[in-house]
This record gives sequence, structure tokens and C-alpha cells, in this order.
Amino acid sequence: MRVLGFDPGTATTGYGVVESQGMRLVHVAHGSITTSAQDHFAARLNTLFTECQRLLDVYQPDAVAIEKLYFSQNVTTGIAVAQARGVIALCVEIAGKPIAEFSPLEVKNGVVGYGKATKKQVQEMVKILLALDLLPRPDDAADALALAICQINAGGFHRAVGK
Amino acid sequence: MRVLGFDPGTATTGYGVVESQGMRLVHVAHGSITTSAQDHFAARLNTLFTECQRLLDVYQPDAVAIEKLYFSQNVTTGIAVAQARGVIALCVEIAGKPIAEFSPLEVKNGVVGYGKATKKQVQEMVKILLALDLLPRPDDAADALALAICQINAGGFHRAVGK
Repeated sequence: MRVLGFDPGTATTGYGVVESQGMRLVHVAHGSITTSAQDHFAARLNTLFTECQRLLDVYQPDAVAIEKLYFSQNVTTGIAVAQARGVIALCVEIAGKPIAEFSPLEVKNGVVGYGKATKKQVQEMVKILLALDLLPRPDDAADALALAICQINAGGFHRAVGK
Repeated sequence: MRVLGFDPGTATTGYGVVESQGMRLVHVAHGSITTSAQDHFAARLNTLFTECQRLLDVYQPDAVAIEKLYFSQNVTTGIAVAQARGVIALCVEIAGKPIAEFSPLEVKNGVVGYGKATKKQVQEMVKILLALDLLPRPDDAADALALAICQINAGGFHRAVGK
């Protein structure tokens, strides 16, 4: 199975595509969607929507993994991230793909096996698991790969709700 | 000019359509889009998206007014509302309409002329300004009509960003 992970944001949304081949995890792609701060927020959401559609079309994932949100720090950023997350979820729904949600804690447990792992440790583990030469960049793309790995490790479809 | 106002929510999104005819404000329509709590959040966003498209198509507004968000109380509800707001903004952007944002304070000032007006006072004022026989229901639709009035009173397009 192939999973597309998304780490949502207005300025930068990370994405990562991982495939399970038997017991192996195979890196397919990663990167980020960026939108311009010069644009109106609705225009930025439209850019994000169009790029998500393109990624779903290009990579044809079996399922999508997306980060669960908790706002504890910056509420204004939080609103923008939640708006972006809504647009990504809509895009995935229109494409008819199942969506699984994972909290940062679940990602740490699912990838490193330790809920208090640092961001850096998660990235190192993503690099090892996917046999990459370098740490995936930007950070949002590394997080998106971790989400995809988490979904595959969680047994793939059983976490995906609504389908 | 004709303005479509949206008061976003996942369970209920209020909408209201108001037209200015010279110095007069004319009520065109109001109501709400509801989604089922039984559905997955992505499916609910898709229902909202489809219904927004339908309203834009039916009422052909010149501009759209939407509430600015501030999370002070319930953060979990806030995330859901922001996701819905992102989907509405995307829908309006795809339709090529300008979007204006108003805070609750701006709506109170714009409709009642008093920033500390109660929700009930705003609704009473909407009823008077639009010559309605009854208070508009549900509350979300009354809020959406207030947003539309606010946008018209603010001089229509000058508040609309990005177009």
C-alpha cells in the first residue's frame, strides 16, 4: 500500500509518500507546497487545494495521513493551520481516499517507539527506515513522511475513518 | 450590490443574502447548512463545500462577508470552525468573488453602532434594517445577515481584500 502524509500549514505544507512492499518501507517522494504571504488567505488556500489535487493525482495513494491539531501556543497561527487542514481534508475526500489522523504523540510512538522522542530523533528514524542518504528536508516534509510511516505501521487502513 | 454572509461552523453554517438598492437594504434569503455528526469530518467539509457552491451559484453575490475568528474559549470547537472557514473561503475564491472579513466587534459596530451590543440587540437590528416580521432563525443565519449588512455599510468592496 502507498500512503501520502500531509503536515498542514498556510505558508508551507509538507508532504511525503511512502510505500510498503512486504515488510519493507520504500520512500517514493517528499517535498512541500508553499504559498506566498503576498497573497490573500483565500488565494493561498486555493493554491494549496490545487497542489494537493496534483499530488493525489500524481502519486495515487491508497490512503492519506494527516496531523491532528492541538492549539496550545500560537492561536493565530493555529487558525491558519486549521483552515489549511480543512482544505487538504476536503481535497482528499473529493478524491475518495480514506484519511487517518495522528497526534504528534502517536507519530513519535509509531515511528520511534517512544512518545517523548525529539523532532530530530523522529527525523533520524525516518532517514533510517526509508534508507535515505540525508535527513529529509524541509522539516514539514520529514514530518509528513513520519505520518505516512505511522499510518503504514498502524496497519494501514484500520485507522482510516469514514470509508 | 448583493452580499452573501457566512457564519462558519462544522455542524451549522449560517448564511444570509442582502442587497443594497440605493439607500435601502433588501433581504434576499437566509438559512443554514447543516452537516451530520455521524459523518467523518472530511465528509462534512465536503457537504459544506458543495452547499456553498450551490449558494454562490443560486444567489450570484457581488461579494462575500465572513466572520474573523478568535479562539478564546473552546479550542477543539475552534479547530473545527477554522477548518470549515477554510473550506468556505476556498469555495468563494474558486468562484472568483471578493471576501471581506469582520470581527464580532466590527459587526456590532457596523450593524448596531455600538461595540458592546448583545447578540439579541444585533438580531433585533437585523430584523429592523431588513424589515422582517420575525427575528431571523437560526442564530447563525442572523449572524450571517449581520455580516452581509456590515459589508454593505462598510462601503461594499473597499473592505474586500485580494481582488
